[in-house]
Amino acid sequence: MRHGLVTPDQLALITDLYELTMAAGYYSQGTADRTATFDLSVRSLPPQRGYLVAAGLEQALAYLRDLRFTSEVLEQLEGTGHFRDDFLDYLSGFRFSGSVDAIAEGTVVFPPTPLATVTAPIIEAQLVETYLLTIITFQTMIATKAARVVGASAGRQVVDFSPRRDHGPQAGLLAARAAVIGGCIGTSNVLAGQRFDIPTYGTMAHSFIMFYPDEEEAFLAFAASYPGDPTLLIDTYDTLEGARAAVRVSRALEEEGRKLAAVRLDSGDLVTLSREVRAILDEAGLHDTKIFASGGLDEFRIHRMLLAGAAVDGFGVGTELGTSGDAPSLDSTYKLVACVDASGEEVPVIKLSTGKITLPGRKQAWRQRNGGSFLRDIIGLADEDLDGEPLIEPVMRDGIPLHRAPTLLDVQRRAAEQLAATPESVRALERPSPYAVDISPRLRQLVDSLRDR
Amino acid sequence: MRHGLVTPDQLALITDLYELTMAAGYYSQGTADRTATFDLSVRSLPPQRGYLVAAGLEQALAYLRDLRFTSEVLEQLEGTGHFRDDFLDYLSGFRFSGSVDAIAEGTVVFPPTPLATVTAPIIEAQLVETYLLTIITFQTMIATKAARVVGASAGRQVVDFSPRRDHGPQAGLLAARAAVIGGCIGTSNVLAGQRFDIPTYGTMAHSFIMFYPDEEEAFLAFAASYPGDPTLLIDTYDTLEGARAAVRVSRALEEEGRKLAAVRLDSGDLVTLSREVRAILDEAGLHDTKIFASGGLDEFRIHRMLLAGAAVDGFGVGTELGTSGDAPSLDSTYKLVACVDASGEEVPVIKLSTGKITLPGRKQAWRQRNGGSFLRDIIGLADEDLDGEPLIEPVMRDGIPLHRAPTLLDVQRRAAEQLAATPESVRALERPSPYAVDISPRLRQLVDSLRDR
Repeated sequence: MRHGLVTPDQLALITDLYELTMAAGYYSQGTADRTATFDLSVRSLPPQRGYLVAAGLEQALAYLRDLRFTSEVLEQLEGTGHFRDDFLDYLSGFRFSGSVDAIAEGTVVFPPTPLATVTAPIIEAQLVETYLLTIITFQTMIATKAARVVGASAGRQVVDFSPRRDHGPQAGLLAARAAVIGGCIGTSNVLAGQRFDIPTYGTMAHSFIMFYPDEEEAFLAFAASYPGDPTLLIDTYDTLEGARAAVRVSRALEEEGRKLAAVRLDSGDLVTLSREVRAILDEAGLHDTKIFASGGLDEFRIHRMLLAGAAVDGFGVGTELGTSGDAPSLDSTYKLVACVDASGEEVPVIKLSTGKITLPGRKQAWRQRNGGSFLRDIIGLADEDLDGEPLIEPVMRDGIPLHRAPTLLDVQRRAAEQLAATPESVRALERPSPYAVDISPRLRQLVDSLRDR
Repeated sequence: MRHGLVTPDQLALITDLYELTMAAGYYSQGTADRTATFDLSVRSLPPQRGYLVAAGLEQALAYLRDLRFTSEVLEQLEGTGHFRDDFLDYLSGFRFSGSVDAIAEGTVVFPPTPLATVTAPIIEAQLVETYLLTIITFQTMIATKAARVVGASAGRQVVDFSPRRDHGPQAGLLAARAAVIGGCIGTSNVLAGQRFDIPTYGTMAHSFIMFYPDEEEAFLAFAASYPGDPTLLIDTYDTLEGARAAVRVSRALEEEGRKLAAVRLDSGDLVTLSREVRAILDEAGLHDTKIFASGGLDEFRIHRMLLAGAAVDGFGVGTELGTSGDAPSLDSTYKLVACVDASGEEVPVIKLSTGKITLPGRKQAWRQRNGGSFLRDIIGLADEDLDGEPLIEPVMRDGIPLHRAPTLLDVQRRAAEQLAATPESVRALERPSPYAVDISPRLRQLVDSLRDR
């Protein structure tokens, strides 16, 4: 019986085989040490997305810092028969010695601006492709989805409820982190709470209520065991009866100096039920008791519920948040954009296959504002000096991270500021307006001259 | 800089908080030891799916066998403020002592037949909900998607190319496992190759070709470093020129007693290009050199390509396979279906909230065949004796797995046999026919009598 967990000593195995066969190629040709630059970008936005929220850089840098080939890993690679001994010897001393320039987590980004740029001996820069793509792409996708859900919730609290529907346990851990970057106030995921200091939320399932002879007895049992102010799930049988039972339980709590924090609705017509439950709570004087809704929610449904006047103070969003259900992948790439040639000179490189032009050379992106609001971005060559705020900054040199990772709350704050500065039409849930991303004249010239060649 | 990995000592933290708050509730009420039975089921099939391929049981059982609360984990739980000390003491001695009955991995399953049934003291059965849901649901979803892709490939080889687009590294590991269950011959995922003895495949990226002054030099460099028969990526510049360069490289390989195993196409009109490349290879006498296609493939595109006469021998499928792109979640549930009441008697339990009826009691499902082909399933009570092959079998007693896990190849073989016995109309890529899943008269009576109560 084998677990499906990934342990830290196996970081080096988390890769497509071809990264290793290519590395072996560079090694055997004596070209391994020639410096190369790769851009990690998202080629284009999925339908209904007007922007991305960058996320995942902390885990990317931790990987680059710690990547080693242990003797156990080397034995396993030897066993595949794909590699020669001298290459495996080389790997035994491997560490990533390169540079990374990247866009800070929590930044609102518009394709095709690179999220990260890796410059290193080509053998190193190539080897890290798969891990960087999966760890940055997934978190960026979920932070973006979370920002949409939180935006639709119009100031109400959103909690990540996705662990059971995420693509395995680690996806749940990373999804919770990204959800908080996108604006969620917490998660039901206990591991994410522990690993990333995220507030955890939870109450009970229907099974808990069903286990007791009646709902009120179940509520009392829960309240007796829970040390703080409990939230009660009131829709197992009849939601309005559940609300009345919760009111009665709140009386018992008050006698102990506690209160009913919230009730949760997980099924039925959430608009009507929430208003009726609000009336029951208010009539009982429980104006501070919140109503929390969950069950198949996403940004579109939340938006419609609030338009229809739902009396909901917070949302638990699971499946659609944790899988980015309407857009469960991003078209991310890791492309060679410059390399040192045999004569020792750095040359920009372009890929021209059908419909997939890459932007060559080491680049920077500048963001221009109109007042406080984002106006347009310009992608240019790194040695240009264009108007606006540069978005890509040095984060690793010689394989060493340059800064401590910001706290998750700082990243969340940055994302909130960035989203507030993003034009409302670009943030629209449906048919968002395109945001202007221009190419500088010098970069355009370079593309043209390489294409002509 | 924190990694986003999940280590084996943290198994107990991979849960929604509410599993723990409910467990604390049962504990404080003295009801923790009353036996309960939960069904893990998928409520309904997503659009375009006519069946599911069960997967993930091995990891589920490994989790139940190994689940412990280490002192470090207990400290972390204490720090959340959600739990009383006596409950944390209880957890320090926790081990799962219950029973699991389940459908074997690789079995074709039709909702709402339970994939697994857990019977244990309710505190234990409840605690394991989140992990079981995520580990079984995700793998079942991907094994199902893989079966569709492999089916569309009509006997050609399919390799999992998904690591970069999976929802993080562990999702990639689990996706590769599930993909093989669904019929893939291997994966590009090196870790999955090592962990689950899956053949690994890989050649080179466009960046490798672009790094060298010309394509043929890149091919030669790769061939020089690769110990076996190489596959060459021929579409970086002009695919037909690439094919001719690959033919020239094959001559050099032949002199060393090697051969060109395959060429890979990753862009452009794969139907036309594959036929033209086949002609170039055949003209050069390279009838054994395979043509491998990749790039944005899924079952629908593969089906159309083959209908149009593509000359492709194998497919690399990434994004859509590893994320089940058109259906990235399954509507799975873990529902209380029976419990021992205060008088010590086991009673069946039903949930009646809007549109979400559960099937009460301990159950079995029987599969009836027409000749070799699956005809219909009947879900009944476990103590019934109905016609057909029972699908749910004992896999764990007293917290101990009853059998060694079957090899992945055995599971793959089972899935292939099961799929071959599934009516073609049920396996259709679009608008599959519904498969008959009946409820036994006794189970129907039980539902009715509980609903009336």
